Amino acid sequence: MNSEGFEALLARASAPAQGAHAPAIDLSHHLSDVSRARETSPLKLFQKYFNKPGLIGLAGGLPAPAYFPFTDISSNILVHNSFPSSTSPESTFSWLWKLLGAKEKTTSISVPKFATRPEDINLATALQYGLSSGLPQLNKLVKDFSKKVYQPAYENWTTLLHAGNTDAWNKVVLTLCNPGEGVLVSRWTYPSAMATMKPYDIQPVTVDIDAQGMRADALREVLANWDEAARGMPRPHVLYTVPIGENPTGTTTGLQRKKEIYQICVEFDVVVVEDGPYYIMDRTYVPKAQREVRASETDEEFIASLEPSYLKIDYQGRVIRLDTFSKTMAPGCRLGWYTCNEMFAERIERAAETSTQAPCGFSQSLVASTLIQWGEPGFMRWLKGLRVQYTLRRDFLVDCFSEEFQLTSAAGSGLWTGCQVYNASPRTRPSSFFNEKMPVAKPLFSFVPPTSGMFVWLKVHLADHPDYETVGVKELESKLFIELAEAGVVMGPGFMFNPTDDWSDVTSGHFRVSFSNGEKEDFKKATTIFGRVLREFMSA
Amino acid sequence: MNSEGFEALLARASAPAQGAHAPAIDLSHHLSDVSRARETSPLKLFQKYFNKPGLIGLAGGLPAPAYFPFTDISSNILVHNSFPSSTSPESTFSWLWKLLGAKEKTTSISVPKFATRPEDINLATALQYGLSSGLPQLNKLVKDFSKKVYQPAYENWTTLLHAGNTDAWNKVVLTLCNPGEGVLVSRWTYPSAMATMKPYDIQPVTVDIDAQGMRADALREVLANWDEAARGMPRPHVLYTVPIGENPTGTTTGLQRKKEIYQICVEFDVVVVEDGPYYIMDRTYVPKAQREVRASETDEEFIASLEPSYLKIDYQGRVIRLDTFSKTMAPGCRLGWYTCNEMFAERIERAAETSTQAPCGFSQSLVASTLIQWGEPGFMRWLKGLRVQYTLRRDFLVDCFSEEFQLTSAAGSGLWTGCQVYNASPRTRPSSFFNEKMPVAKPLFSFVPPTSGMFVWLKVHLADHPDYETVGVKELESKLFIELAEAGVVMGPGFMFNPTDDWSDVTSGHFRVSFSNGEKEDFKKATTIFGRVLREFMSA
Repeated sequence: MNSEGFEALLARASAPAQGAHAPAIDLSHHLSDVSRARETSPLKLFQKYFNKPGLIGLAGGLPAPAYFPFTDISSNILVHNSFPSSTSPESTFSWLWKLLGAKEKTTSISVPKFATRPEDINLATALQYGLSSGLPQLNKLVKDFSKKVYQPAYENWTTLLHAGNTDAWNKVVLTLCNPGEGVLVSRWTYPSAMATMKPYDIQPVTVDIDAQGMRADALREVLANWDEAARGMPRPHVLYTVPIGENPTGTTTGLQRKKEIYQICVEFDVVVVEDGPYYIMDRTYVPKAQREVRASETDEEFIASLEPSYLKIDYQGRVIRLDTFSKTMAPGCRLGWYTCNEMFAERIERAAETSTQAPCGFSQSLVASTLIQWGEPGFMRWLKGLRVQYTLRRDFLVDCFSEEFQLTSAAGSGLWTGCQVYNASPRTRPSSFFNEKMPVAKPLFSFVPPTSGMFVWLKVHLADHPDYETVGVKELESKLFIELAEAGVVMGPGFMFNPTDDWSDVTSGHFRVSFSNGEKEDFKKATTIFGRVLREFMSA
Repeated sequence: MNSEGFEALLARASAPAQGAHAPAIDLSHHLSDVSRARETSPLKLFQKYFNKPGLIGLAGGLPAPAYFPFTDISSNILVHNSFPSSTSPESTFSWLWKLLGAKEKTTSISVPKFATRPEDINLATALQYGLSSGLPQLNKLVKDFSKKVYQPAYENWTTLLHAGNTDAWNKVVLTLCNPGEGVLVSRWTYPSAMATMKPYDIQPVTVDIDAQGMRADALREVLANWDEAARGMPRPHVLYTVPIGENPTGTTTGLQRKKEIYQICVEFDVVVVEDGPYYIMDRTYVPKAQREVRASETDEEFIASLEPSYLKIDYQGRVIRLDTFSKTMAPGCRLGWYTCNEMFAERIERAAETSTQAPCGFSQSLVASTLIQWGEPGFMRWLKGLRVQYTLRRDFLVDCFSEEFQLTSAAGSGLWTGCQVYNASPRTRPSSFFNEKMPVAKPLFSFVPPTSGMFVWLKVHLADHPDYETVGVKELESKLFIELAEAGVVMGPGFMFNPTDDWSDVTSGHFRVSFSNGEKEDFKKATTIFGRVLREFMSA
């Protein structure tokens, strides 16, 4: 049965009528032993006595807010429209505004220790022990955002603040998985997420990918043919994915593919954990010569233009989405939120109570105040500005490759079926981008310009290296990494992103090149060095 | 062998000469399977290439600081001498300064995104991804503090920032213990610390206590007579303690007792985890009539007056101390630090890398800036002020009990050998405090005024309740809790602080009464209500 056929069948059988959202199904059998063993506070039994007006509480060990040295905190924040919302010849990601400080427009936010209106954010509450779910004001803001942008397809979803996606994933792993279990991941994936689970003997189970990331047919094959004895573990019931701008490959899983994968997860009862740091950064690469000005979008157009979250098709409540302010504000906020069903949220909150507790109160109050100061349209405008910035960065880096190498575009095959692959050959003579009439030398590497995320994933054709047979691909990749580093450029070596020790299916070297940071001259210099070192390396 | 004799013997045999600090011994056999399985980043292998000047790094996914909306953060902070450093008739903990806002003296701190001098704290670094060990500037401040105040007795100790003691303990548990193991704890102890470890099937092993907290002889008995088969777990190799102002009992372990316990831990190879939130709050209670003004202290006198940390006698590096800014600044900072040997610190840092990462950047930069603004003498002065505040609070609460009840002082026995126990009887007639010539009614409850911490631990004589035999102590305690709550006062019910399900040795009800927060009138009202409800309850 092809996956479309299957999906249609299953959708008819079990999906709720369009528009009418059903509640989440019972997924409590997915909880780990550790999570099941977490008790709710015995004081909950007495909750009803706590609502008495005038009750004097001497049970908790809360220090008096009078002893908090911080009588207020304030911040000058960039205005919501600091970055252009459209690409135009003048749009740039250089740090012009830093050098010309006067041009940076700011507005100020301030959080007092005691607010005049008790519903306003105040440090007496934000810096006090409190519910691990975080400040209600911020929880409401992120819930409104999830509703508007991700549009979960079931009724009783909720949000829960957390201390950044790395810790959020850590808590999800321990909430869902027992030691000895496996988690379904893409063939190349985010090493930090793997390093989180591996020490607990929760091992990655890889699923082959293509230009859209995880392949639905490969996922079905893994699950349908699962051999517990041969694999040494039960069939995985958790899938980890970065479906937009996957790290490191930069791939984005389209809606149709997401539907296929989701329905397979319904069929095989798998919980989908969607790590979503790069959701706002998706736009197709257009070669420089054909590039046109991209106009500003309305909020509705902006939201509609984003690749949908798995939440949008999650009619059963089996998706746990991880959001972070690390990429939309700053990593040091250590702040983000879960969007998931209430049962998972409750279990994760119990885990937070005995570890991280609520996210940092400074961070919660400053981020919430920023969102309130900008307003929802202001935050949308801020996100549009960031999208343009990352688009410009991605474009500039790929343009640099096109200047250093002779890029030719080809229909992908194998892994990259269904997309345009850019093959990068040594320049035979000065030429403009994509002059396909010229004879081209053998490509040194290939890549698919990412529509999303922060990385270009280079596939270096190490099989053409003279020592390929004798030295092997992994060693050659390390050697090239070292030669590049000695020449002054560090790119992320592919071996870091292999979640397994399996190299049998790997015939290329890989490098993850980040365009999230750095200046134009860095990209230019780095690609020039890369070109020189790679040409020498491959002809060694 | 009594413990003193043993200690002298062992000290001669193995302790280094006074003054000369030896390095930590190898304690790596204490690491859990999970901790051993944590790999260092493979990029470490390439570290040496990263120090090239001018290296262009395109390996990491760091967003550009230009996209951080926060161009600066600032805060008005209380001046370091906001609270009196001596007790005097005018000293008060009421929120006078809140009502008379003009009297609150503040100074301001500010953290720019880009600092003029790169060594200054700046948001471009503090809000960026960085080392999980935290900002170097803050790490230096806390290391200097640990050196000055705790004075570790071995050479190669270090500090590591963390996101609050709850999460710090969580990481220690997973770094040291495997499922199925036990941790040595006091007979009554902090429930949150227990809730952290129990879901991982790491169970508390209780050690009897007296007025100084954990008893050395009881600890020796547990370890020396450990029966693995009967207990169903190997002999514990980790001890958790809050040695100053233990939560909930308020007991403080003196230096001599600490030495005895430490040497037993040397003998039986146990790692001591010292949770130290209340270290600055220790001072003996003096009845109101005898109370005298306590003068200010020099920094040296202040430090010398604090009960020493286990670190001070730790010549082997087997103590992991947890410090927090929750009580000295604010809980919402979610910030503190470990002081421990380098091997444990390295393993814990690896755990942080794949979960919480570095503590929140706002918190790190604001707390560090506050410490820098105050200076070290200023921070000492701030701590002295807090000590006086908590002393005044403790005194006022105990004074309230003395007004509501007829308090008589007696030499303790049993659990409370070696200290003055205050027995609280119904007032037979108006009288001054400690008028021991009066006839006194049978005591309703007893307590030892704590020298430290934030809590008074009441032992309610439920054995004298008419229903004691039929209803049982646990049910009576809950019943009293509810009657108090319905009358308008919530105190921490003792059952929460029993780390086991064992009630066989419990013949009293317990209530933990916090003096950390609340106003004078709250304490007065609460003790009055408590008196009325308790008298009625016990004569029911």
